[in-house]
Amino acid sequence: MWTLKQIADHIGGVVKGDGTFQVNSIGTLQAATTDQISFLSNKKYKKYLVDTNAGIVIVHESMVVDVPNHAIIVDDPYVAYAKTASLLNPTIEMSKGIHPTASVDATSQIHPSASIAAQVVIESDVEIAEDVIIGPGCVLLRGVKVGKATRMTANITICESVQIGKNGLIHPGVVIGADGFGIANDKGTWIKVPQIGSVVIGDDVEIGANTTIDRGAIDNTTIGNGVKLDNQIQIGHNVVIGDNTVIAGCTGIAGSTQIGQNCIIGGGVGISGHLEICDGVQMSGMSMITKSITKPGVYSSGIPAEPVQQWHRNVIRYRQMDKLADRVKQLETLNKK
Amino acid sequence: MWTLKQIADHIGGVVKGDGTFQVNSIGTLQAATTDQISFLSNKKYKKYLVDTNAGIVIVHESMVVDVPNHAIIVDDPYVAYAKTASLLNPTIEMSKGIHPTASVDATSQIHPSASIAAQVVIESDVEIAEDVIIGPGCVLLRGVKVGKATRMTANITICESVQIGKNGLIHPGVVIGADGFGIANDKGTWIKVPQIGSVVIGDDVEIGANTTIDRGAIDNTTIGNGVKLDNQIQIGHNVVIGDNTVIAGCTGIAGSTQIGQNCIIGGGVGISGHLEICDGVQMSGMSMITKSITKPGVYSSGIPAEPVQQWHRNVIRYRQMDKLADRVKQLETLNKK
Amino acid sequence: MWTLKQIADHIGGVVKGDGTFQVNSIGTLQAATTDQISFLSNKKYKKYLVDTNAGIVIVHESMVVDVPNHAIIVDDPYVAYAKTASLLNPTIEMSKGIHPTASVDATSQIHPSASIAAQVVIESDVEIAEDVIIGPGCVLLRGVKVGKATRMTANITICESVQIGKNGLIHPGVVIGADGFGIANDKGTWIKVPQIGSVVIGDDVEIGANTTIDRGAIDNTTIGNGVKLDNQIQIGHNVVIGDNTVIAGCTGIAGSTQIGQNCIIGGGVGISGHLEICDGVQMSGMSMITKSITKPGVYSSGIPAEPVQQWHRNVIRYRQMDKLADRVKQLETLNKK
Repeated sequence: MWTLKQIADHIGGVVKGDGTFQVNSIGTLQAATTDQISFLSNKKYKKYLVDTNAGIVIVHESMVVDVPNHAIIVDDPYVAYAKTASLLNPTIEMSKGIHPTASVDATSQIHPSASIAAQVVIESDVEIAEDVIIGPGCVLLRGVKVGKATRMTANITICESVQIGKNGLIHPGVVIGADGFGIANDKGTWIKVPQIGSVVIGDDVEIGANTTIDRGAIDNTTIGNGVKLDNQIQIGHNVVIGDNTVIAGCTGIAGSTQIGQNCIIGGGVGISGHLEICDGVQMSGMSMITKSITKPGVYSSGIPAEPVQQWHRNVIRYRQMDKLADRVKQLETLNKK
Repeated sequence: MWTLKQIADHIGGVVKGDGTFQVNSIGTLQAATTDQISFLSNKKYKKYLVDTNAGIVIVHESMVVDVPNHAIIVDDPYVAYAKTASLLNPTIEMSKGIHPTASVDATSQIHPSASIAAQVVIESDVEIAEDVIIGPGCVLLRGVKVGKATRMTANITICESVQIGKNGLIHPGVVIGADGFGIANDKGTWIKVPQIGSVVIGDDVEIGANTTIDRGAIDNTTIGNGVKLDNQIQIGHNVVIGDNTVIAGCTGIAGSTQIGQNCIIGGGVGISGHLEICDGVQMSGMSMITKSITKPGVYSSGIPAEPVQQWHRNVIRYRQMDKLADRVKQLETLNKK
Repeated sequence: MWTLKQIADHIGGVVKGDGTFQVNSIGTLQAATTDQISFLSNKKYKKYLVDTNAGIVIVHESMVVDVPNHAIIVDDPYVAYAKTASLLNPTIEMSKGIHPTASVDATSQIHPSASIAAQVVIESDVEIAEDVIIGPGCVLLRGVKVGKATRMTANITICESVQIGKNGLIHPGVVIGADGFGIANDKGTWIKVPQIGSVVIGDDVEIGANTTIDRGAIDNTTIGNGVKLDNQIQIGHNVVIGDNTVIAGCTGIAGSTQIGQNCIIGGGVGISGHLEICDGVQMSGMSMITKSITKPGVYSSGIPAEPVQQWHRNVIRYRQMDKLADRVKQLETLNKK
């Protein structure tokens, strides 16, 4: 149980109500009970505020009049909610040491405070720092280095010599350091271009389930500090992603493209290879990026869906644009006479 | 070996020919031999009917005159073929019990009729019902519950507290219950929003290889009964998918979107977050869905490929549409005078 | 260390400089030191040639005057670089035999020269040829056959009866032979169509991380010799891919489509089911292929991203095309009078 005051202190908010009031968990405005804390940040949900049963609601000052019970007033309720959720849901402690079913090569250095779970494989010359958690079924190939307090959930593959920073969080099915797609056409036959670079991942990086990050062809693929990657993202060889850039699921980035810092890239975006994207660029979902971007701002492409008959008609019109332009030109000529 | 009559009884069809005639397996119309049964449902393949060597063909009554050998007449040959294939290819029995290389926590309850394969990891407080099959290399984290007769093929990861219903079929590489993509920007730094909801999956759900379903932020992500998901689908946190909806491969659904019942969603579709899609909606492949849909029907987007020169030309014309519209307006003004 | 002459002989190039000069590794033109060899194939990087510190540069004859140190002259510097990289970075030898933590069924035949790593599962009736490497955490289900010298990195799943040729290279997270997406609607309920075909993969095939290849419904899914697949590709049941075709990441191919030989398919492409794509077709990234292609050449679709305001405006114009065409028609009628 946490008191209103404890939580307010933790998130730097102002108490409105009884500071000794207690809650035990988090709920949405619609579903929360009196022993739960909730929050309002998206205006879309404002309608649920008046009738919420939540014992405490985290709100912006402008909304506090509508809170039926206790409140904590903050500048940014979403950030405050994130901090509250971390306070109320501490990470479960894993048992330290190496599970008896794990297979760890004798040449690897595992810090005694690290946790190596069941069925893990750690090959030779791997270095695991303190408080690292390697979940069940993970495979770390030769020479991998994992920084302090980084957690890998389960069934993750980290290939040869990949380096991962501190405080990382890697979700199941992720593959880091598989070969980049390097092939050369030798008189009609594709031959392999060995991928001799590696992958270097900064601190505080989160990587979503089944995302893949390829190793570099010669130099390394590089992921900056504070980068957050969602699920099923594909990052080609020698891509560079700047600090604090976030990328939503199913986006693909082709080889050697450089993405700046503090970019926000939507889901299902496709980015061609060998481009440079400057800092502060946002891309909306399913955008098709074929050229470098040198100016911060929001970029978009794609035509949203419509009823199928309309779609058919519009695709036909699209293919007739060239002729339509000619017809307009003819009319213009006619009208000039 | 199965007789014509046995199969006809199983699928509720009418025998045409010798009920004692026997077949041992299924083949396509083109490749089947006389000891095989085939079917015709797609008119595209009608041309192969007359010359087929198949000993038996499952057909609609309207086609039966062209069957060279024995036939079974049914209303829906595709459904009848599906049932025949199940009859002729029963699921292989797995040995019951826990494989000696599996790592199963003592607090978990495994029904004695369940099969736990090699290298599996089952953490604490997991509940496995009768006749469940957990294939090699699967990892079930704390508190997972799996309903009767659900099968997991291999190398699947089920995260903390996820609940899976009865008669499910989950293919390799699937990840259920990894953290949703929840981050909040705290004065320039992205901080994690703990994902404290779970995933609840109904009965009779099939989930294709390498598909990922994220756990909810506060409430659960929910997959209805009879839902069928193809490979490499990404389902964000708090998505709700209604009963009997089917989704083809590579589709991504962003967080908090609700999909109705009996929807049919094509491959490579992208659906934005926080939308509501009503029952009975169909989306064609690669559609980009950015708004809620309140009316059943077929929705589409995307312009099919064309030869590269034409594509270049059309993209240029597309970018000139605004000017073209202005030119038309000018002509109209001119012609009004 | 390798001498200039050794490398030149290996790649069939002409020495320019001291044939006894030695290098130990490969570097890019920008970063290479004097004990490294580099290459120039992409004209974009020509500017770095004059100032490179690389001890040796592999170049085309036309560029050799600008090489500051030693050179090897070849017709195709990229192919020559690929061969040099293979020479200087030989595949690491794996210890032969079966790791004690692997679980191998007694009915399977493992060639004594093969390497079966930790935590591998090999079910019954599997055949592993000479020099095959099965990396940590891989699962091979019943009846799989793997040809000579094929390597699987880690955490790969090969399902029942799949056949893989010689000299293959399969990256982590790949799933081959999971059920295709076969369902039939039986009066409102989706029932499963058993997938009784398999997957047959030719020789010299590379398959990227987390790519999935489904087994056939009745006949097999077939991948030709020399095919190269990047990461996170989805290949549906009964797809046929011709020899030497290469496909970039995140592309999806729906069921029963046949792709010819020597095709080059970009990333994020979506190809509908039941199509025929002839030999020698190229598709640019994110193309939407909805019809068969009978003529070799380059095909494209998709409108590249633009600043968001422009995008909004263009989407509106797109939806007005029909009306615009009507207005042009009216003007034409008016002008004919």
